[in-house]
Amino acid sequence: MATGTLRAILCSFSIIFLFKLNVFSCQQFSISFQQPSDCGVDSYFDISSLSCVKCGPNQVSSKSGLACECQTGFRVLVSNGASITCQQCPDANQGVTQDGYGCIHCFGSVGESGKCQCPKGSVLVERDGNGNPLNESRCEACNATEPAFSAPDRTGNRCVRCEDSFINSSQSCVCGASNIQAGGMCFPSNNLPTSVVPNVIFSQLANSVLSAWFSNFMYSSAAACLLFSNRTACQSLGNMCVMNMHSFSTINNDACGLYNTVYRATAAQGSSQDISYWRANLPWLYYGDQLGLASRILQNEPLPVGFSFKWAQKNTNIELRAAVYSVRGEFLRWESVGGGNLQLCPDSPTRQQSAFTFGTAYKQSCVLTVSELLNGYPEPVFYDVFLVIQKPQEVKHLLAVPLLNINQQFNGQSTNEGSNMNNWLLTRRLMLVDTLSGRQNSLSSSPGVIRVASNIKIGFQLVPNTQKGQVYPPLMTVTYSDIPVTDPTTQTVTVSFSLEYTMDQEEARVKTDVNCSWCKNRISSHRPTIMKFLVFYAGDLANVFFIITVGTGLYWLIFFKAQLFVSVLLPLPAQEERFVVYVGCAFALKTVQFLHKLFVQLSVDIFFIDWERPRGKASKHVEGSGEAKSQASPVSIWRTYFVANEWNEIQTIRKINPTFQVIAVLFFLEVVGFSNLALRDPSSDMRRSPEAYTPPYSLILRYGVASAMWLCIGLIQMIFFTVFHERFVEDKIRQFVDLCSISNISVLLLSHRCFGYYIHGRSVHGHADTNMDEMNTNLKREAENLCGQRGLLPNSDTQTFQISITNRLRAQYDRIIEPINRRSGPSRLVDASANPCEQSTKAYHTMNRFLGSVIDHAHREMDYIVKDKLLFEKLIGMEFIEPLDKSIFYNDDSHSFADVLFYGNEAVLLIFDTLFFCVVDLGSQNFILAAVLTYLQQLVFRLIRNGMGRRNLASKTLVDKRFLI
Amino acid sequence: MATGTLRAILCSFSIIFLFKLNVFSCQQFSISFQQPSDCGVDSYFDISSLSCVKCGPNQVSSKSGLACECQTGFRVLVSNGASITCQQCPDANQGVTQDGYGCIHCFGSVGESGKCQCPKGSVLVERDGNGNPLNESRCEACNATEPAFSAPDRTGNRCVRCEDSFINSSQSCVCGASNIQAGGMCFPSNNLPTSVVPNVIFSQLANSVLSAWFSNFMYSSAAACLLFSNRTACQSLGNMCVMNMHSFSTINNDACGLYNTVYRATAAQGSSQDISYWRANLPWLYYGDQLGLASRILQNEPLPVGFSFKWAQKNTNIELRAAVYSVRGEFLRWESVGGGNLQLCPDSPTRQQSAFTFGTAYKQSCVLTVSELLNGYPEPVFYDVFLVIQKPQEVKHLLAVPLLNINQQFNGQSTNEGSNMNNWLLTRRLMLVDTLSGRQNSLSSSPGVIRVASNIKIGFQLVPNTQKGQVYPPLMTVTYSDIPVTDPTTQTVTVSFSLEYTMDQEEARVKTDVNCSWCKNRISSHRPTIMKFLVFYAGDLANVFFIITVGTGLYWLIFFKAQLFVSVLLPLPAQEERFVVYVGCAFALKTVQFLHKLFVQLSVDIFFIDWERPRGKASKHVEGSGEAKSQASPVSIWRTYFVANEWNEIQTIRKINPTFQVIAVLFFLEVVGFSNLALRDPSSDMRRSPEAYTPPYSLILRYGVASAMWLCIGLIQMIFFTVFHERFVEDKIRQFVDLCSISNISVLLLSHRCFGYYIHGRSVHGHADTNMDEMNTNLKREAENLCGQRGLLPNSDTQTFQISITNRLRAQYDRIIEPINRRSGPSRLVDASANPCEQSTKAYHTMNRFLGSVIDHAHREMDYIVKDKLLFEKLIGMEFIEPLDKSIFYNDDSHSFADVLFYGNEAVLLIFDTLFFCVVDLGSQNFILAAVLTYLQQLVFRLIRNGMGRRNLASKTLVDKRFLI
Repeated sequence: MATGTLRAILCSFSIIFLFKLNVFSCQQFSISFQQPSDCGVDSYFDISSLSCVKCGPNQVSSKSGLACECQTGFRVLVSNGASITCQQCPDANQGVTQDGYGCIHCFGSVGESGKCQCPKGSVLVERDGNGNPLNESRCEACNATEPAFSAPDRTGNRCVRCEDSFINSSQSCVCGASNIQAGGMCFPSNNLPTSVVPNVIFSQLANSVLSAWFSNFMYSSAAACLLFSNRTACQSLGNMCVMNMHSFSTINNDACGLYNTVYRATAAQGSSQDISYWRANLPWLYYGDQLGLASRILQNEPLPVGFSFKWAQKNTNIELRAAVYSVRGEFLRWESVGGGNLQLCPDSPTRQQSAFTFGTAYKQSCVLTVSELLNGYPEPVFYDVFLVIQKPQEVKHLLAVPLLNINQQFNGQSTNEGSNMNNWLLTRRLMLVDTLSGRQNSLSSSPGVIRVASNIKIGFQLVPNTQKGQVYPPLMTVTYSDIPVTDPTTQTVTVSFSLEYTMDQEEARVKTDVNCSWCKNRISSHRPTIMKFLVFYAGDLANVFFIITVGTGLYWLIFFKAQLFVSVLLPLPAQEERFVVYVGCAFALKTVQFLHKLFVQLSVDIFFIDWERPRGKASKHVEGSGEAKSQASPVSIWRTYFVANEWNEIQTIRKINPTFQVIAVLFFLEVVGFSNLALRDPSSDMRRSPEAYTPPYSLILRYGVASAMWLCIGLIQMIFFTVFHERFVEDKIRQFVDLCSISNISVLLLSHRCFGYYIHGRSVHGHADTNMDEMNTNLKREAENLCGQRGLLPNSDTQTFQISITNRLRAQYDRIIEPINRRSGPSRLVDASANPCEQSTKAYHTMNRFLGSVIDHAHREMDYIVKDKLLFEKLIGMEFIEPLDKSIFYNDDSHSFADVLFYGNEAVLLIFDTLFFCVVDLGSQNFILAAVLTYLQQLVFRLIRNGMGRRNLASKTLVDKRFLI
Repeated sequence: MATGTLRAILCSFSIIFLFKLNVFSCQQFSISFQQPSDCGVDSYFDISSLSCVKCGPNQVSSKSGLACECQTGFRVLVSNGASITCQQCPDANQGVTQDGYGCIHCFGSVGESGKCQCPKGSVLVERDGNGNPLNESRCEACNATEPAFSAPDRTGNRCVRCEDSFINSSQSCVCGASNIQAGGMCFPSNNLPTSVVPNVIFSQLANSVLSAWFSNFMYSSAAACLLFSNRTACQSLGNMCVMNMHSFSTINNDACGLYNTVYRATAAQGSSQDISYWRANLPWLYYGDQLGLASRILQNEPLPVGFSFKWAQKNTNIELRAAVYSVRGEFLRWESVGGGNLQLCPDSPTRQQSAFTFGTAYKQSCVLTVSELLNGYPEPVFYDVFLVIQKPQEVKHLLAVPLLNINQQFNGQSTNEGSNMNNWLLTRRLMLVDTLSGRQNSLSSSPGVIRVASNIKIGFQLVPNTQKGQVYPPLMTVTYSDIPVTDPTTQTVTVSFSLEYTMDQEEARVKTDVNCSWCKNRISSHRPTIMKFLVFYAGDLANVFFIITVGTGLYWLIFFKAQLFVSVLLPLPAQEERFVVYVGCAFALKTVQFLHKLFVQLSVDIFFIDWERPRGKASKHVEGSGEAKSQASPVSIWRTYFVANEWNEIQTIRKINPTFQVIAVLFFLEVVGFSNLALRDPSSDMRRSPEAYTPPYSLILRYGVASAMWLCIGLIQMIFFTVFHERFVEDKIRQFVDLCSISNISVLLLSHRCFGYYIHGRSVHGHADTNMDEMNTNLKREAENLCGQRGLLPNSDTQTFQISITNRLRAQYDRIIEPINRRSGPSRLVDASANPCEQSTKAYHTMNRFLGSVIDHAHREMDYIVKDKLLFEKLIGMEFIEPLDKSIFYNDDSHSFADVLFYGNEAVLLIFDTLFFCVVDLGSQNFILAAVLTYLQQLVFRLIRNGMGRRNLASKTLVDKRFLI
């Protein structure tokens, strides 16, 4: 409130000062909004004050609304530049002179405007030759005959020489009965149909409009073209045919019918520029109406200049040039296409110009309002488009670009709509927006229907098997939309402009398909046991699909982006669908394999065999009695705990750091900018300016870049971890084997019923359950090579084995383990009285003794032999000998027991992650989302593997879960 | 080769058929490129064949080059629309008639064009009134006096009424000696200076051009404006002043001088629209030349309509409307600003229109070539810009938008260049491109210099402390560039268009500064021991900075984006620098704190006290003798290994998953789209169309969004881990304490010399070094509460303590540990004979016994007491009592020993990560890069902490590094 008061006081002060100093006005410098149309008939719009001002007496506002003029029958008395004074003419029979300053008796009649009028063929004379005003105006008839040949000029003030066609046709300025007067010209009688059909067909609306433009000028254009070879008339006639969508039939008196009549009638004139379809003096509209001609024009001979993407020969510039004609048939100029002349959507010049870089998939589309089109395109202009061919050291040549008008009708049929090239009729000449032909009553009325080139596409096709970047002549395809104008400000039309590059993709597809059907056959040959084998073959099949898809992706990436001369072009989005299906198959199959592996790992049988034997007697207080009783001192379980704990920890160790993998891939794709390689353009730049046009992504290229990135970084990580990290920093698997040895504990792993792994961990020192002194001494002795070797066989170092056990051994194993497994079984089977915990410890000790004795060859009937695997067995990962009598221990220095860990399945995991990442990306086209979901997927499966693996470990080895931390 | 031959054969065939069927041409439909200017003087450009065609005899090409005309002295004999025949006029004295079809004897002379000429003031008559040609042309003088008042018309063919100004000034169509004729008008003598300065000053080039436009029309415009109040003349004069950059001085005969002369002379006409600076009939160019006026205009009164960002009252639309004038002073139209009329850079309508959304920082700039400007802007147009004010239920009002022309000179000084508003001179009327005033010789010559409005800025300023979205009137600032035209195709000019929103940021800055200086003072009060305390205070100080910056970021985020009525506007990029410095400070200080914490953690003293005592005798083979010797059975070291191993593993456990944190933040920012909240516009949409305009980012908002996201997700994770995960899944810290208890091992941690932690792990069962049966029994008994409690004090459960030990205890500790530490010391101090390994195991046993006895109160002089911490001690994390005589064990149920692990320092780590992320992002404006680097930073520090922590653990506890896996 206080502020308001203060402001008011200040304001008053200012007003006081205003009159003295004219310094400062408190008002807001605001005016009310008025425009000329608001002012009404007796006011004009004052352009200095931007407001309506009343006209003087007897005045009305002029047509523009910006000044006043005297009303009808009044003359200007005084005019001082700013205002006028009007005075009525004294005599009722008087008219106002043409200049408005005088009154004059009219010889003829007084027109509606209050000025004198003369009959047709006469001129109005108000002053004599020296400019002196006459008392009465005269009407003087113009002498139409030779030698005067005169007629009133446009203003009706002078007699001037009349139009040539009158003189030529009738030797007079009067056309005469035997001749035909049309469009301001006079034609002798001729072969043209006398009644023409001035209708424009809007076939989308199933509607035809009687066009004022056609009515006024169609016959005259045709006649002037035919009879006088008038070039603008010929062009104008051609334009009408274009406005009628090049459609023709047997009717010969519509626009294209007249054009064709003239075309046939002027055969004697010969052709322009040695192009047979291009009649001299006529515009070139058609390539002939023979079916099948299109394919010969489009695919017969490549352009003489090839395109190349790189280096000195780089030539990606598509230079189009258009001859531009007005609707009246005047040649306006040559225009370089680009900078928006065919692109109706406004955009920045850089973005618009990038349409014309060869190989850049370009599509620009937008929604325009009809009122914008009405204002921006009062008349259509017509483009004859040529491709500029500039060979070195030669003059520029222009190659006519054929046009496929989808709306064209040939004998009432839309032959160009289908994809069968043999039915196409190619044409020339293009217009963008036609707001003229739809005007019905007069040329100044507003159009009832407008026609817009709503879809312009320029397509290039590569010559098959070219190595020099040769392409066939481009084809321009245009689709027009017919829009009935009802409410221009809200009506909209979607327009687009695109460039498309295609090559014959059959060959590439055949290759992929052959590959895939080959592997399908390989599968189906195993049909009998499909479900079971599917799981086992899923991995192989997935790998085949993966290799094919990655290969395809890399093929396109390398051959498209790195080609010097253009020899391949990307498949169109629709053609990529099949590829996406293959990737999906690969992913699905890989998922099956991965889940199967996971399931096997989570149900592996494992047991830790403790070789430690008690060292002596321990005194133990028997509870309740207080009496010491001597018994074998217990073997500490802590070594087993330690080993189990370590085993638990290495379950999800991998050969790479999976999170680093995700982050690194994301870094290279999105920060370094490798993702830009997947854009549908020939550039290999990884940095794009935000102002530049961004073409759409190619799914195949995205897949190629992403999978290549995954595999590369994965490989680098694996090399780093194998060559450097495991050798110089830490090798968890090696450590675990060493730990077994030091802790005097062996590990038996059964991943299948009769197949598994054995880690021999019997301590070379006999005992491991000891204090720090002895442990240190033992470690030192071993480091100094003072004790025996760790191997299972004497004098060998081999501690790890693949084992293939006999059924008998397995049966015995199962028998011992049974009470443990029953723990979690249905309770009715358990003897209620028996302590389950005691039972399981008993089982543990039994198992420990049993397995120890088996390893020590104490059981004849369950003996085993140690041997090397054959090279071929190693290669295919299978064993040829069935362990019937004796179990077989295969020497295995490569720690293949890691196969029951993540560690030994790095390839599966990496490919699964890669496919997961790529599938998410193909679905969302978002590398960040793919990275996030891949990370989550890794996290979830790691948690599942860890959690359920831990539970399995606890139940199989009887180590309490609480020690697996 | 074969293909080539085949093609040749086919080609020949086609040629044969060509003549018969006219079906198919083997040629490439190509033509050579020719344009009208290539055709030379004796050829014309045939618009149908698009080629040059020779003209007939005696013909030359017309001016347009599209047709032929008869050469001088020849008349058209026959014209048939396509071609003409020319014939020389028979008589040498004859001229060709105006229409070119006849020959005529000239009364006057024959002009250069071969046609008859008449003297000035006369009209050429070649036909009589009825159009019959005369034998000899006549020149008839127009009667200039009353009542005829006639003069030749523009074509020189008729006498018509002459211009009003002649009649008004001289009562005749001859201007007369006492009057002044200029620009086609006649003025009576007047007060205007008779000699004007038609120079345009291009001050950037230190150059002035004698302008043809100014020479022709300046005086006449001024005179017609002053004398006849001719409105277009007044506008035209004003336009010239604008073209001369509104510059004025004491000279009164340059453009603005004349304007001001007229302005002063027409004071009696009053003002337009009640605006005192807007003289009736004149354009409004100046707001008065009083210094200091600008601030009163710009900051006196807010707009009557406020802006609001949200909901029903949403009003972010800035509607500007301009009155557009041609350079001749004609009013062209009212134009809505937008859609590119002030925006010289072409762009899509959506993007261009988004400039006019209140609160959207808009800047569009591009580089245009001079030739584009020359073609696109043959004449300047002038804009009087108004802001549309539309109150509900009222008519539209327009508020004049003041213009600050940076190039304006006032008495030779560029007063508008500085930022001091009091020196500014505000003006009106703007032009974009002036290619006219730089034309020197004639209006059709090409300009030597052009002037472009290279920088247009519209600035809004918020009313201080507004709650209603009130803003002051906008200010348009324009900077023109003067470009001397040398090579139009290569010369370029950078133009930009921007909108800027400001508010008085002083207040916000003061707040931040006060906060910061307060904390600086707090620091400097501790000056004496700066370096040492800095490390300890760094964390607090960093927290203060962090809270301030996050608060500021959130303040802007919430108050800017969420405001209903606009009450705050973002600081400009330049104003954000100070904020970035604060963030940098916070990060630097946090880094110091983090590194200090890390260093402390890596050098902590730790010892595992094994309470286990031998249970019995073990028989041991004495080496070499083969004789069994009975001795105390060794206590297994494996429990210690297990505990040490676990401790090693929990070193880098955190309360959150740091990688998940990074990925989740990235997900929300980039995939969900929170990053879009940091754009400088009022929209809170997280999805932006790629076609829409993307405003620049605000650093403060980026920081606000990113840090809020970090803290939120961090908090959610902490709650999840604390409330759910640690309670129901796994609590690593609790597990470790349990493990100590089960394994009968206590942990002594000394993080500082006399301060540390103690975990009491004495087994309640007396022994832990036992087999599985007993372990299971023990666990079961404890679960069933059948045994004592685990606490240090009888009947207590407290196992974890903060300890404050006496110097004596510490000295003893150091003495025992000495030989171990010496291991890695300089070798000369070590007794060469002593086995270092034996020494250290000896020290281990000594330490074990010593610490065990201390805990058992066996050393009187090193006794301890157990007590609770005072509440206040807990709160500030300090102890008040110095342990002089007895060590103090403070009960600590909250496991604060985790302070020496990452786990206990989650706040520091989270804030450090947050700041790291934000600092990288502020530097690179790339959240992905920030996420990648943050992940790497976490990885590196985790590896360092793990690796060096492991080494420290091994050296302090004497557990062999090989067991810490």
